[in-house]
Parts: sequence; structure tokens; C-alpha cells
Amino acid sequence: MADDPMTLSCPLPLTEYPEVTLAHGGGGSMMNMLIEKMMLSAFGSPDPGERHDGAVLDIPSRRIAFTTDSYVIDPLFFPGGDIGSLAVYGTVNDLSVCGARPLWLSVGFILEEGFPMEDLWKIVRSMADAAKATGVTIVTGDTKVVDRGKGDGVFINTSGVGILREGVEVTPGRVTPGDSVILSGDLGRHGISIMALREGIELESTIESDLAPLSAVVEKLLDAGIDIHCMRDLTRGGLASALNEIATASGTGIHIDEELIPVVEEVRGACEILGFDPLYVANEGRLVLFVDPTDAERTLELLRSEEVSSGAVQIGRAEEMTTAPVTITSLIGTVRIVDMLSGEQLPRIC
Amino acid sequence: MADDPMTLSCPLPLTEYPEVTLAHGGGGSMMNMLIEKMMLSAFGSPDPGERHDGAVLDIPSRRIAFTTDSYVIDPLFFPGGDIGSLAVYGTVNDLSVCGARPLWLSVGFILEEGFPMEDLWKIVRSMADAAKATGVTIVTGDTKVVDRGKGDGVFINTSGVGILREGVEVTPGRVTPGDSVILSGDLGRHGISIMALREGIELESTIESDLAPLSAVVEKLLDAGIDIHCMRDLTRGGLASALNEIATASGTGIHIDEELIPVVEEVRGACEILGFDPLYVANEGRLVLFVDPTDAERTLELLRSEEVSSGAVQIGRAEEMTTAPVTITSLIGTVRIVDMLSGEQLPRIC
Repeated sequence: MADDPMTLSCPLPLTEYPEVTLAHGGGGSMMNMLIEKMMLSAFGSPDPGERHDGAVLDIPSRRIAFTTDSYVIDPLFFPGGDIGSLAVYGTVNDLSVCGARPLWLSVGFILEEGFPMEDLWKIVRSMADAAKATGVTIVTGDTKVVDRGKGDGVFINTSGVGILREGVEVTPGRVTPGDSVILSGDLGRHGISIMALREGIELESTIESDLAPLSAVVEKLLDAGIDIHCMRDLTRGGLASALNEIATASGTGIHIDEELIPVVEEVRGACEILGFDPLYVANEGRLVLFVDPTDAERTLELLRSEEVSSGAVQIGRAEEMTTAPVTITSLIGTVRIVDMLSGEQLPRIC
Repeated sequence: MADDPMTLSCPLPLTEYPEVTLAHGGGGSMMNMLIEKMMLSAFGSPDPGERHDGAVLDIPSRRIAFTTDSYVIDPLFFPGGDIGSLAVYGTVNDLSVCGARPLWLSVGFILEEGFPMEDLWKIVRSMADAAKATGVTIVTGDTKVVDRGKGDGVFINTSGVGILREGVEVTPGRVTPGDSVILSGDLGRHGISIMALREGIELESTIESDLAPLSAVVEKLLDAGIDIHCMRDLTRGGLASALNEIATASGTGIHIDEELIPVVEEVRGACEILGFDPLYVANEGRLVLFVDPTDAERTLELLRSEEVSSGAVQIGRAEEMTTAPVTITSLIGTVRIVDMLSGEQLPRIC
């Protein structure tokens, strides 16, 4: 395994192989070369004698979490990340919010014929770095190539396996009226960053995506014995969709207070111009969690001690469901229903 | 969970939702409806209170196998299967050849805007049926939609988790000179079937893909105590690539005898017309395995007792590596090297 893939130039000679070709997905020697030279040099390689169509893993636990996500974000590179780091952090975060410690990822590439090999190498390096940063290992993979015009550069699927410690039960069914609802930071930076880039919208300053791994802070909470009732990372559909899903799944209402929800000035401004509501805009490094009110203060302290969640605040409470799953006290003091997003606010945001 | 998805009509009203739209991947209520009504009704649904971004699973074993594959086959429907059954059986087979019992799958759909909802339902039903037939459960999933012209109908990633029993070690490192090399049936039907359909080649009779699950027969071999040294299912790159990979990974040569390799007449004829070598043509229901010669006869008997491997034969032996990783005695008695496929024989075969 390469010690530090970021410092390495592409191990495939780019003058000889400037682009992905159909043969790179054909199951023969061209594909083998791509996998050996690029993927395994970045992600680490099992001993040849151990190579399989899959990875065989020792499980130090009786329970695992298993999750999958495909990433089709457009553009592939954006302020604060790229499709590679997104594909690692996104799936790591999905495991973390199950209460699991992320350990292993699979990666499936769907490449379009003609995709620049150099860009693929940037993405692969970015994945390797993100994996290293979060302590996960990419243990198995697959590469397919589709003909020109039948894909869009690169799509990536990552699936993940993590282990659960004894006694941890993080699930909507445990949300109870009275629970404190805590948000780990400000909303909307990922969505607005992508939107601004894609639509060529001029903002006063570049907004960086909030893309970040949540695994370390979740481990910290669990290590400290915080009994997290339920947890979600906020992605497509934003906070509003996550809260609606939890409320519907748990049968418990959720009330939040708009005044308490942090949104940075640039994001608020961009949302106003574009007609977006920050409650619905995608994030990639934010989580919402539900704890007993007696745990709220300590949870906030622990969250604030990590940079990724330094802006954590309590934004509301779980309550008996009455008028609707999710309600909000708006900035002008009126109470309204927070629906799920109905249509498509922003396609290909992740 | 639907008792028998095959008998059900699409639970989404097709007149109202004839096509996939970008909103079906947007994280809001349209996506929720697609997942609830179509995916969960076919694949089975966890209790609402247990719903997560991932699945939490009890592991009755200390070791798991973990694998991933993306499926980009063109066309989506073919004689003997479709992309849905392929995506289930393909990943089930990858787990089986690790020596694992397949238990859980994830599914990631990348849909193109405008894809007919009825076709999606056919594919989803086909996946549900294939899962049922092999005893695996689809436990977690993801749906993305890309804009028209940026995909090709549907791509599917399935990742799989299976459990390994104590003492089973199926790995290239165990291949030893003298091992019997056993092939589970005739070669090339999947590749030729797709090729004929896609290129509009008229054959005397329709060739059906050999697509089939190998999990039951592998379980049978392990139950009988056969000590399988190494095993591979034959997909892209065919038998030639699988043998080259194993020989290279194990450092042990492989010699096979062309006369012993079964190829049905229609496939042989089509290969001659098209200039293909059946050794390189893709299969989706065939495996090659390595056992001690004292186990060969019983392995063949057990394989032949299952329909999927009724045509099993010993095709050669492992040997000290001399001239090349893989050699073959041809039909006319000369010995030649069997290289890996170098280019792309047939794109998007799986």
C-alpha cells in the first residue's frame, strides 16, 4: 500500500493511457492493470494469495451495520471536496449515524469511456486520503466502463460495513416526547456550494461544502456513554426531510425553533436569491440527534469540542404528535408545519 | 413484505407516474413514495421504528465475506434474465466463491430521468424473486436519478455480505500442483446470448444466458466436507481470465485440455462466425474450482447432482509454473499459452 498517495503521481503513465477506454472495464489485462496500478496502489492490496471476488473479514462484534450509497454529484470537483471524498465520508457517516464504527468500504466505479485518467487518479487519491482520515479500509471493488454518452464521467457506489458495540441502540423507535433535538452545526453549505458552482452564480465569497466525516465525534459521544436515542446525517432533502422521516418512523412529533437554527450569512443570502429554504438544502457533514434532556448539556459540550460540530445547538424537542410530524416556530413567532420536500430542489447534489 | 411480488402489478399507479423523474432521486416525498411503494413492497421493509440509513444485522459467525459489483449490462432484458436477476445472482455468486453463505444484499440504483416506471418495476420484481430463490435479503438501498442523456436507463450496484463457517479457507494461496481443476458446465452462453441480441445476429435457435445462482451447489459441497482450495465464478474475461488470475495469485501453473471443455454447438458456431474464443466469453452461472485429486470424483458427483452444474467436468490440473501461468492442449494436440484477454471483447456484458 502506498504510504501517502497524495504525494504520488499517477502510477499509470498518462501519456500512454490518457483516457478511460472500454477495455478498462473488459475483465482482461487492461482492467487488471488499472486495478493493480491505480486502485490497489492507492487503497492497499491484499496478499496475492488472498485475492478473491470479495473480501474475507474477521468480525470483532456480534452486530454489524451495512449501508450503501451511489454518488452522482455534478460537478465532480467542488470547493471543499470531490466525488471521491464525498463517496467515502458519505458512507462513513451513514454507518456512524447507525451507532456503528465504520471499518470497511467497497467501491464500485462506473466510468464513462473517454474520462480523463488524471481526473480518475485525483478521485482515487482523494478516496484513499478520506479512508485514511476516518480509519476505514477499502477492501473490495469493481470497475465498469460504459460507452461514451451513456454515463457522465464517473459515478461511484460505496457500501460500508461497521461494527456495533454492545448495548448501543440508535433507532427512531427510541425517540420519546421530551427528547432534546440537537443539530451539530449550520445548515446548507454543501447544497449552496454545488448550486453556485454549477449554475455559475456569483457570490461575494466562495462557499465551501460542509463535507466532513462524523465518525470521530460519534465515537466520542458513545465513548462518553451518551445514550443517543436516534441520529441522522443530513443529506438530500436537508434537515426537514430527516426530521420528517424520524417523526414518521417513531410516531413522535418534533417541534423546532427557527431562531435557534444556525445558517451562515452567505448561505442565507444565496437561499433568498434562489428561493430556497435552508431547512431543505443538502448538507454532508451535519447530524441531528435525539437524547434525553438530562444528557443534552453534556452532548452539546462533547459536540462543541470537535471542530466538525463546534457549532452544535439544541434546536427543539420531541413531543406528542398532534397536527403534523414536524412543526416550527418561525422567526416571526408563528407556528407552521414543516413538510417533506415534495419535488426536486437540486438534482445530483450527492 | 409482498408474499409473491411476481403476481403483483406495480404498486405505483403507472398512468400517474409513467416515468422516472429527477424528483424520484431528490430526497423528498417523491423519492419516499418510490421507495415505500415499490422497493420496500418488493424487497421487504423493516419496522418503521428500526429504519436507518443502513441495516443493523446480527452476525452468527466470526468471519464475513463482503463484495460489490455494479451492473451496466446492455440490453437490460435478455433471454434467461435481466439486469435485476443478474445483479442479485452475480453478487450472490461472488460471495459463494469466497466460500461464504450469502445472507444480505444492498442495492443502489442509478436511474436515468425518463426511464419507464413499468420497466423499473419489472427489474425490482426480478430482484425480489432472485433474492427469494437464493435466500438472501435486500436490507438496505439507495436511489439516485441522473438527468436525461447522462445515464443509460438503469445501472445497479449490489454489494453483499455473507458468513463463513469455521475452517473454510477458499483462496488462491491454497492451490497446489496436482490439484484437479473442475469446471461446472459449458462455456459462453451468457456472452453469446447478449451479443446476438445486441448486434441483431440471427442464430438458428435463441441462446439463453447461463445466468444462475451458484449458492446452493457451493453449500452442498461445503456441507459434504469437500475441501475446496480455490473457486471462481466466470464472468467478464471468461475462463481464461479467471485461470490467469488464480495462477498469478497462487504462483502455481494451470494446464487445461481443450477437448474436455464443454461448449454447446450453437455457441461454438456463433463464436466461429464472430471470431471469439469461448475461453474468453463471459458466463454468469459457471464456476471453476480446485480440489485435491482425491476429492475430485466426489466433487464431480455432487456438482452433477444439481441442475446448475450438471455438466461438470475435470478440465485439467494445477502444476509447477514453467512457461506461463496457464497453458492448454489444443484440439489438434499442440500446447499453447492461454493469455489474459487484453482488450475489450464485448463491452457491457454484465
